[in-house]
Amino acid sequence: MRIEHDFLGEIQIQDEVYYGVQTTRALENFIITGHRMNTDFIASFGIVKAAAAKANMRTGRMPIKIGNAIVQAAQEIIEGKLHDQFIVDCIQGGAGTSMNMNANEVIANRALEILGEAKGNYALISPNNHVNMAQSTNDVMPTAMRICTITKAKKLIAALEDMAAAFTVKGDSFNHILKMGRTHLQDAVPITLGQEFYAYVEATKRAIKRIRENVKNMHFVNMGATAVGTGLNAEPEYIAFVIEELSRLTGEEIHSAANLVDATQNTDQIAEISSALKVTALAFCKIASDLRLMSSGPRCGLGELSLPARQPGSSIMPGKVNPVIPEVVNQVAYQVIGNDLVISLAVENGQFELNVMEPVMAYNLFNSLTILTNVVNTLNHKCVKDIEANEERCREMIDKSVGIVTALLPHIGYEQSSAIAKEALKTGASVKELVISKGLLTAAQLEIILSPSEMTQPGIAGKQFLK
Amino acid sequence: MRIEHDFLGEIQIQDEVYYGVQTTRALENFIITGHRMNTDFIASFGIVKAAAAKANMRTGRMPIKIGNAIVQAAQEIIEGKLHDQFIVDCIQGGAGTSMNMNANEVIANRALEILGEAKGNYALISPNNHVNMAQSTNDVMPTAMRICTITKAKKLIAALEDMAAAFTVKGDSFNHILKMGRTHLQDAVPITLGQEFYAYVEATKRAIKRIRENVKNMHFVNMGATAVGTGLNAEPEYIAFVIEELSRLTGEEIHSAANLVDATQNTDQIAEISSALKVTALAFCKIASDLRLMSSGPRCGLGELSLPARQPGSSIMPGKVNPVIPEVVNQVAYQVIGNDLVISLAVENGQFELNVMEPVMAYNLFNSLTILTNVVNTLNHKCVKDIEANEERCREMIDKSVGIVTALLPHIGYEQSSAIAKEALKTGASVKELVISKGLLTAAQLEIILSPSEMTQPGIAGKQFLK
Amino acid sequence: MRIEHDFLGEIQIQDEVYYGVQTTRALENFIITGHRMNTDFIASFGIVKAAAAKANMRTGRMPIKIGNAIVQAAQEIIEGKLHDQFIVDCIQGGAGTSMNMNANEVIANRALEILGEAKGNYALISPNNHVNMAQSTNDVMPTAMRICTITKAKKLIAALEDMAAAFTVKGDSFNHILKMGRTHLQDAVPITLGQEFYAYVEATKRAIKRIRENVKNMHFVNMGATAVGTGLNAEPEYIAFVIEELSRLTGEEIHSAANLVDATQNTDQIAEISSALKVTALAFCKIASDLRLMSSGPRCGLGELSLPARQPGSSIMPGKVNPVIPEVVNQVAYQVIGNDLVISLAVENGQFELNVMEPVMAYNLFNSLTILTNVVNTLNHKCVKDIEANEERCREMIDKSVGIVTALLPHIGYEQSSAIAKEALKTGASVKELVISKGLLTAAQLEIILSPSEMTQPGIAGKQFLK
Amino acid sequence: MRIEHDFLGEIQIQDEVYYGVQTTRALENFIITGHRMNTDFIASFGIVKAAAAKANMRTGRMPIKIGNAIVQAAQEIIEGKLHDQFIVDCIQGGAGTSMNMNANEVIANRALEILGEAKGNYALISPNNHVNMAQSTNDVMPTAMRICTITKAKKLIAALEDMAAAFTVKGDSFNHILKMGRTHLQDAVPITLGQEFYAYVEATKRAIKRIRENVKNMHFVNMGATAVGTGLNAEPEYIAFVIEELSRLTGEEIHSAANLVDATQNTDQIAEISSALKVTALAFCKIASDLRLMSSGPRCGLGELSLPARQPGSSIMPGKVNPVIPEVVNQVAYQVIGNDLVISLAVENGQFELNVMEPVMAYNLFNSLTILTNVVNTLNHKCVKDIEANEERCREMIDKSVGIVTALLPHIGYEQSSAIAKEALKTGASVKELVISKGLLTAAQLEIILSPSEMTQPGIAGKQFLK
Repeated sequence: MRIEHDFLGEIQIQDEVYYGVQTTRALENFIITGHRMNTDFIASFGIVKAAAAKANMRTGRMPIKIGNAIVQAAQEIIEGKLHDQFIVDCIQGGAGTSMNMNANEVIANRALEILGEAKGNYALISPNNHVNMAQSTNDVMPTAMRICTITKAKKLIAALEDMAAAFTVKGDSFNHILKMGRTHLQDAVPITLGQEFYAYVEATKRAIKRIRENVKNMHFVNMGATAVGTGLNAEPEYIAFVIEELSRLTGEEIHSAANLVDATQNTDQIAEISSALKVTALAFCKIASDLRLMSSGPRCGLGELSLPARQPGSSIMPGKVNPVIPEVVNQVAYQVIGNDLVISLAVENGQFELNVMEPVMAYNLFNSLTILTNVVNTLNHKCVKDIEANEERCREMIDKSVGIVTALLPHIGYEQSSAIAKEALKTGASVKELVISKGLLTAAQLEIILSPSEMTQPGIAGKQFLK
Repeated sequence: MRIEHDFLGEIQIQDEVYYGVQTTRALENFIITGHRMNTDFIASFGIVKAAAAKANMRTGRMPIKIGNAIVQAAQEIIEGKLHDQFIVDCIQGGAGTSMNMNANEVIANRALEILGEAKGNYALISPNNHVNMAQSTNDVMPTAMRICTITKAKKLIAALEDMAAAFTVKGDSFNHILKMGRTHLQDAVPITLGQEFYAYVEATKRAIKRIRENVKNMHFVNMGATAVGTGLNAEPEYIAFVIEELSRLTGEEIHSAANLVDATQNTDQIAEISSALKVTALAFCKIASDLRLMSSGPRCGLGELSLPARQPGSSIMPGKVNPVIPEVVNQVAYQVIGNDLVISLAVENGQFELNVMEPVMAYNLFNSLTILTNVVNTLNHKCVKDIEANEERCREMIDKSVGIVTALLPHIGYEQSSAIAKEALKTGASVKELVISKGLLTAAQLEIILSPSEMTQPGIAGKQFLK
Repeated sequence: MRIEHDFLGEIQIQDEVYYGVQTTRALENFIITGHRMNTDFIASFGIVKAAAAKANMRTGRMPIKIGNAIVQAAQEIIEGKLHDQFIVDCIQGGAGTSMNMNANEVIANRALEILGEAKGNYALISPNNHVNMAQSTNDVMPTAMRICTITKAKKLIAALEDMAAAFTVKGDSFNHILKMGRTHLQDAVPITLGQEFYAYVEATKRAIKRIRENVKNMHFVNMGATAVGTGLNAEPEYIAFVIEELSRLTGEEIHSAANLVDATQNTDQIAEISSALKVTALAFCKIASDLRLMSSGPRCGLGELSLPARQPGSSIMPGKVNPVIPEVVNQVAYQVIGNDLVISLAVENGQFELNVMEPVMAYNLFNSLTILTNVVNTLNHKCVKDIEANEERCREMIDKSVGIVTALLPHIGYEQSSAIAKEALKTGASVKELVISKGLLTAAQLEIILSPSEMTQPGIAGKQFLK
Repeated sequence: MRIEHDFLGEIQIQDEVYYGVQTTRALENFIITGHRMNTDFIASFGIVKAAAAKANMRTGRMPIKIGNAIVQAAQEIIEGKLHDQFIVDCIQGGAGTSMNMNANEVIANRALEILGEAKGNYALISPNNHVNMAQSTNDVMPTAMRICTITKAKKLIAALEDMAAAFTVKGDSFNHILKMGRTHLQDAVPITLGQEFYAYVEATKRAIKRIRENVKNMHFVNMGATAVGTGLNAEPEYIAFVIEELSRLTGEEIHSAANLVDATQNTDQIAEISSALKVTALAFCKIASDLRLMSSGPRCGLGELSLPARQPGSSIMPGKVNPVIPEVVNQVAYQVIGNDLVISLAVENGQFELNVMEPVMAYNLFNSLTILTNVVNTLNHKCVKDIEANEERCREMIDKSVGIVTALLPHIGYEQSSAIAKEALKTGASVKELVISKGLLTAAQLEIILSPSEMTQPGIAGKQFLK
């Protein structure tokens, strides 16, 4: 055991661990979720700390030997080597100070070890004076959140791109399949199954664009803001250097926020990117619901699609298979919507120079990014790729429908068309039969007007017959 | 025009209006929604003001002549006569002071008029000293909110009781109709259409119980709390009297809250009753969705129910009829859920001795109560009462389903039942045929095991054949 | 009275009204909120109808005489002349068909009147065949929603631009006022009051940018999609023409959505722009809370700012003035957040070729735009413009604070600085005194290190003294 | 490795694990959150399975030897011995079938082991035929959710009871401390610090009552409902027995839901209890915000309370201590509010005989219960117990305030009191001085009227002097 102290007093710490007194206090103070920090988030702290140490070496404030040891320790965190030392609860008071100090202490002690010194020898390498040099939790935390978001958003975008491609493949293979279009769950006019999947492609592409736009904002960070955004204790050249180093370490173009006071106290861009995830969730909710509706059955539902069977669906009903993949999409969507509300509540409650609710923002944002990425991949690989269409069933429904009467509108008007529809529904007669028997249009004309290709493309079907 | 003043200065007011200087300021300050106070809420202010004046007369502080005039004016408000004088925006700063002062001023001026005095002669009857005697916005507003909630909740409960009765009638008339039960939108095991409607009855009854329980809390008011709950300027006997008068005027058992400081600053019971409305909305959302699914078609959907046609469904598709009533139920449910969030946000933001966000709470709570009542009545009278079942269609689906294989489970086990189900789906053969052809059970046995009544009641169908 | 009919039957209508049978049915079906359509929304229907009529004349399908009468009637709606004829409830089933038919009927009857014909003579000008020619509610409604959003967003952006300017003016005039910066509501390090107001400027500018970006999406409309997006009954040249006419009538660059099937069924962009409003609300919530905190007092609070007195604050506490304008900002923000949830719920529930929940989306989106615009103008003109700073009070607090110890960090380290802070708080001694008495730094050095300008700008104060 | 199969095919499983083929499929299908089931929830499945096995033995359907082995295995799960075998993701499609099958398989294999048989020998003990006998996921899952909720709610109630006791202790010790009451963050009239803490006691007690009421509903379970609530394959006597056994195992009075069809498809009571947690969170949000405001400072804030220092507050600002415990209370409250929205969304989306979104409901409900319990304990033991009041500071503020003018209202009227207040604020003179100098009341009268005890209790201070 070693003894560490802070201005509140001394504390005993097991010598093998890298974290120190402040982390230990946080561990005791915050027993809330039992969940630790997201691994990408831990790595982001490594990136920030490495960048700051490099910048501090460049300005000459940080002794090179110490600086290099810090960078090496931070690098190990980036590589995932010390993640088990990040033990603080992901929901915590203190605006992330405990996360920052956890990083500072782990890095200080690992750096001491690298230099062959004993852990806890903070006179040589101090978590506050050295690892946190020219920094405050109030710039480190928002910056690490942004870098983590960039990292995780890339994974989500990749998943969405694959998804868009998979929907496109399906759209292509289903494009010849004519089916009943539905509005209000009521029979409307024909559409192709391909057209439906192409609509999913568009929604997915829009999600990609939306997230990409929002990730741009994440590239503007407030390093150098220190405590309240005024930059106290951070030299202007340090600020320039740390941004350069962040760009180098992330491979992204990182910029300094235009107004550091603003960037330290306002978190609206976190709410904004979370909203982008929420909107994406809403779009996928709709897609999942469609898939569940189209695959309803097998005998007593719409039965237009067959989803791949992933697992027995029931512990009691033999042979039952359920659309478990779209169902988990809906549930993840609900979670993302709820997470977005948590973030909104947190963002709303900034006060003066800081928003102390950042830990719960980070927790929910990274959770949303993770589960949305996972579920998009799941939907793609465990469902959409293997969806099969029941072409015959789709055709059957078109044949018996009355919605096709809409194509007659330009020819015989709304009122007469309505009467035909009503009579067809009442008597069971087909629209075609009725129109011909009433002498409204000829069989030859109807052949053209009611042809599938005419009905699923813009234009008046049978325009040539218009009076 | 008459001239009125407050400690901020003088203001000109048209002589025919009953409101005064503070109402006029509020009118200028808050141009937000353009919506005025709910009429039941205005009446509730009348009730509170009448009760206070009566109590103040009983303690002897209020001169009888003035008190009687105030009571008469308040009574007119209760009767809806001066509602056009309540002009302040329903979203406003100031914790409802503008609403309270609007009431105080209208009553003072009307009381002056009753006594043959000129409006604005506040030396005789003052909005603050007389109409607001022993009161503060901080007890008047929460009390008026509670009284209004009681009034409006009664209307909602009546609507829900009618609704439960209507569902029961339908349940009775549909109880003989066997249909396919569905879980995950997949064919499960048979159920009767009546059983489904009886489930709606239960959900509706639970809503009634839930709202009733919550309305009980609304009977505990903080009159006498005055500014911060300590009761400064409110004599204990006045407090007792005002509660008595409130009970008399409302016909309800009104009680004094156990702790007036608490009752003045905490609004959690407003969030609680709003949550009860939200949960009710969720339950009706599910019912509305079921009705929309069951009436999907007419040719290309489930087609189990026919909802009454209320209006042409499409401006372009002739003869189309949409389930517009269940659709408006869903939308109202969403609004109620959103309103509940507004209320939660407002309740969260109390500070010290008061929650200044009460106006937006009141606005959303009364809106939810109103639209929920309206939509339940709409669902009942414009839809449910005239729903018809497509019995033949329900029967057809049962006949071709494979879900009935579940009834075989106790007889032939999960694995063999699964195999039967799989084969039936693949070959199109019926479950019955396959079981008989494989010699697993006899036709006579199956007749009993698969009988509708057996399958829709607890117990093992064909128990006598169990090995 | 005149008699009209639709395929559900006949109905009597008062002859002076312009709406017809389908509007009347909707009026009876939907008694929900009692609120009618937003006036900008009504005007947007006028725009869409005028554009469609012009496009239909250009393709030759619409007789010129009828087309011109329709355009004239639609123009009157754009000018606000027939708004009292739009009577349907703003929450309604049917995906907006009742709104579209209300417009179709009012225009048809007014056009008939213009031509000297009797109202109801639909054989001559039909709401469906003529006014709705080549249209469906499913393209008209989303298009009108987008045009209305463009209109209303412009007003909001103008309000925000004024607000940013007002914050800048205040920032300029407060820039010399040093005050205590606070994080966690705890004394941190100095900042200027101007820096705080400049941060509000940034947040406001970001809101403008965010809304502008989202409004761009609103320029892509699905006219020509007709019922399900396939364009049935809409000629390609008509689609091109109607977009041109919309651009001409709105003065905006309106485009055809890339995929009309997608644009008809997906409403994620409505959720997206609503989210932008929500995020804006969150940012203003923070600003309003800051203003309320800084103006707390007058004697027992922070007392850094004096907000203009807008109205007496209390019906019982004489002379009390409350921050009613920031309070209404918070409440509007809550409403906008709740409205956004309603929209999310509606957007989530699209099915197949349409999202039938569009009416409740429109209602909440336009409500949010309206009240946000109103409240930003209110905050600006009734509060921010007249805010005064209590400079002396701000200075006093700096003088007695210990937070300035942070500036010593680079000079004497975290541990020694902590000890000084602790002792200062315990003994009441000033930081300066303690540092000098302990011989850590000289008075002359401290004069520079603790100078206001050093402490509120980036850099290490007294860098020259660093060892 | 052993080989298992289901109707989708064969799969290889490591022989040491207790779960089987269906769990393995679920593990592959649902890689979403990485979080496993809550341990209380796992134990609840153990309880349900033990109860069902006992009931099945009592009806004679389950062979005693097998039944006993199943009960023993289930008992081990109740005791936490096999929790590492519950590996399915807590967000999953399939309405909990994977959780139920995970339990069924673990129990079957452990029971086989107990009987000395090889794992996977399902011909002897089958997960479906034996462990799941007379059950369906659709009754097991809702029942396990309810039992888990009962267990977890007890812990929360205990935490809240301790909290109420701690607030009471503080209220008692602070009851003599007079401080400025505040409304709108503006100085109002005096109150005691004890009165404020007693209000927290009331809010806490109301939370206890609210949760208790809701937990009652959790005692009504749908065991015996099987697949769709009709009870197919569940004998009536089994249903009675399983309820008895559940009561015995839980020590609670468990009842059969009145309508099993309803209880299987409707989840509104889950939304209801979640709402109760949300409302509790809102109340604690307010308390936490008060504590943060009252402890603001130490020099530049209100400074009425000193919270115990739990950890250094800043990585850069030496000696800074932040209110980290109330801050984590706010964040947990936001999380609970967000979780409640997730549950609402899930509850809304039931369809027909089931709500397939139960897994995400369970996840969020148990998360809310856990973190709320943890944070209440944290607030109690790490903050409230050690709060100290700054009595002198509280007194100082009262002395210089003008809000006490309210006590003069009954004596000199609203208008004159307002003038005094205005003059006091403007000139800095005290209220007392001004009243005396103007000859409105005597010093002796004011001594009584403005005495602390008079001002913090109901009644007109100095009533004897009223004219």
